[in-house]
Amino acid sequence: MSIDSASQPKAVVLLSGGLDSATALAIARRRGFLPHCLSFDYGQRHRVELLAAERIAQHLGAIAHRTIKLDLAQFGSSALTDPTIAVPVEGITTGIPVTYVPARNTIMLSLALAWAEVLDASDIFIGVNAVDYSGYPDCRPEFIRAFETMANLATKAAVEGRRMSIHAPLIQLSKAEIIRQGTALGVDYAMTISCYQPNQDGHACGICDSCRLRREGFAAAELPDPTPYRQNAGQ
Amino acid sequence: MSIDSASQPKAVVLLSGGLDSATALAIARRRGFLPHCLSFDYGQRHRVELLAAERIAQHLGAIAHRTIKLDLAQFGSSALTDPTIAVPVEGITTGIPVTYVPARNTIMLSLALAWAEVLDASDIFIGVNAVDYSGYPDCRPEFIRAFETMANLATKAAVEGRRMSIHAPLIQLSKAEIIRQGTALGVDYAMTISCYQPNQDGHACGICDSCRLRREGFAAAELPDPTPYRQNAGQ
Repeated sequence: MSIDSASQPKAVVLLSGGLDSATALAIARRRGFLPHCLSFDYGQRHRVELLAAERIAQHLGAIAHRTIKLDLAQFGSSALTDPTIAVPVEGITTGIPVTYVPARNTIMLSLALAWAEVLDASDIFIGVNAVDYSGYPDCRPEFIRAFETMANLATKAAVEGRRMSIHAPLIQLSKAEIIRQGTALGVDYAMTISCYQPNQDGHACGICDSCRLRREGFAAAELPDPTPYRQNAGQ
Repeated sequence: MSIDSASQPKAVVLLSGGLDSATALAIARRRGFLPHCLSFDYGQRHRVELLAAERIAQHLGAIAHRTIKLDLAQFGSSALTDPTIAVPVEGITTGIPVTYVPARNTIMLSLALAWAEVLDASDIFIGVNAVDYSGYPDCRPEFIRAFETMANLATKAAVEGRRMSIHAPLIQLSKAEIIRQGTALGVDYAMTISCYQPNQDGHACGICDSCRLRREGFAAAELPDPTPYRQNAGQ
């Protein structure tokens, strides 16, 4: 930490344990923010990503890291929270996949907004991406802009004139560009977990949509892929 | 329930256990919706309101009622969740009071949105009021409109062309008008709890902002106030 940290602004950074949010955290720090990381234990089957989030927060100099417990699995309707719905492994198709979790980014940004308000922070970072992504509606630029507009009417801070900014620094980048940028900022991607169905040790399946996007990203970036894959992963 | 309930649309109704949300539920039902009620155990000191919410959901014909556990007290910064901050009892003042819970309505509406999406419901009811209210920013019409705009970009349903509506049927009513409307719809207000600091038995203090607004509402509506007040409440 720099000596004049008292003069640096705080930011809340949503941190999943995956590649994108780790890069968003590194960018927030490079831009001079004191990152306060927020993760969610929401009933995801890839819960091992929360251990990754802890490692990454420490690795990339987070000032604080909180994990909020919130049972989204009770709503079901997603392969990420309902064990009876299989994670697709046949390749990325058009349309919104069954891994979509209803209103997930809206809920996470809302809780980030609450923490930001309490911290007197005016900035929230989220690692959504609308290029090499899974087609989720709440990863699109128009959604982020609409959330920011709403946030600026929702809070006491907004009424008192402090403007809240939602930063989505990866939103227009390809996966390869994200990986190159993160690598330049010192992100150790071996710590991150992207797989939707990793095993207990954090080894990736290699064939879910998230694994495919990640593998293609490292290949396109012409950088070695440090992901620990399971033996017999569909490589 | 009417016989043709299969043809009635579902709605998610945010239900706190207080006077306003009970009225919003009665209105949703009168408008022909099948109400699915959502309450929050968020660390509020007036947690006894959750028992009231259960009674009201049953009394007013809810199809389902869920209570989501979510620790907003960990963020602190509100008299409603932090026992070290006193609930004001000196009368309503200008400005946003210390009972404001950061981003509370944003968070609750976000979770209602998730449930609505899973239910294939296009309607959410919230009992916010911007007339006889405590000055919370997230009770204003412009906030509700901005949330609705955001919600219509956030979800799979929205992408597929199903428009989500956020109904705030009380937003422009006085407390007296709310009470008259609810009474006409058969709401038993003796079941509701508005007090920010009720005792274990649900008896109201009579002097917090919420009690004051409620008492003045019954007086202005010229209806008997069925609220159980504590002995020695500041009447």
